[in-house]
Amino acid sequence: MGTTMSDPRALFLHELGDIFYAEQQIVKSLPKLIDEATDSELVEGFTRHLQETNRQVENLHRVFDELGETAKGEKCPGIEGLMKEHDQFMEEHQPSAMVRDTFLTGAAARVEHYEIAAYTGLIAMAIGMEETTAARLLSENLEQEKRALDAVVTVGERLAGDARPGSAA
Amino acid sequence: MGTTMSDPRALFLHELGDIFYAEQQIVKSLPKLIDEATDSELVEGFTRHLQETNRQVENLHRVFDELGETAKGEKCPGIEGLMKEHDQFMEEHQPSAMVRDTFLTGAAARVEHYEIAAYTGLIAMAIGMEETTAARLLSENLEQEKRALDAVVTVGERLAGDARPGSAA
Repeated sequence: MGTTMSDPRALFLHELGDIFYAEQQIVKSLPKLIDEATDSELVEGFTRHLQETNRQVENLHRVFDELGETAKGEKCPGIEGLMKEHDQFMEEHQPSAMVRDTFLTGAAARVEHYEIAAYTGLIAMAIGMEETTAARLLSENLEQEKRALDAVVTVGERLAGDARPGSAA
Repeated sequence: MGTTMSDPRALFLHELGDIFYAEQQIVKSLPKLIDEATDSELVEGFTRHLQETNRQVENLHRVFDELGETAKGEKCPGIEGLMKEHDQFMEEHQPSAMVRDTFLTGAAARVEHYEIAAYTGLIAMAIGMEETTAARLLSENLEQEKRALDAVVTVGERLAGDARPGSAA
């Protein structure tokens, strides 16, 4: 506290701790989302992403190792805000299954986007530091997040289409 | 509180209020980021985006009008968490100019990504509701956010490259 951060490596480790903490929170919260979702494609997507997220946490351990550092999470107000947004909506609005599924696609997309932002920045910094193994591991996580985002956006678009006035659904 | 939300239109209005609140917070916070940034391309990018954000708020007023509703913000823990993440880092780490600029590109990218997630969901819902004018206005905002994200990521990559060991910078 109060000391000046002037080393790019210190910023990298801070941001790495931030996404490490975020991924751990996501591992904890996905079972709740799996319970809340009713659309089968959404449930499957969340279930698959829980497995992926566990592997992403392992990748992050390896990135810390690569830098000769002990893995340490950095309490991350960003991801906590996104989770609070979900919890508060569910509590205040007790949405029907259809509204809930659509809401969950939006909440999950916000989380994926957060992670994409974090990994994109980390990869640029890892390349800048010539930490190529770290950059590769982080890129693996980034590509998975992008695919997870595409999947959840696709479900969101289908659900929004089903809500069309006069739609068969 | 406690009533069940079962109408897709109610969810759309909730999410519209969420991004309306977020955009207003961004208008308030960008002058702070402009002060904090030292890289001239970053300062210019934030300055341009402040003007764009003011127009985006106007577009959101028009979307509320299209739906025959009064514009009303919905307190949004997601954007508040992202802003807290920025404020907390700046206070705790008092970063040097170089670290600060790189940090700001990451913080701004997280905000742009949040907005991209929000607008993507809103556009799908607007199309589902056959609100084509609303969908078009929201798409204008989305395209601006994507360009703002690209700009800030480009600066972040340049700054990370400048940090390379043995780099001229």
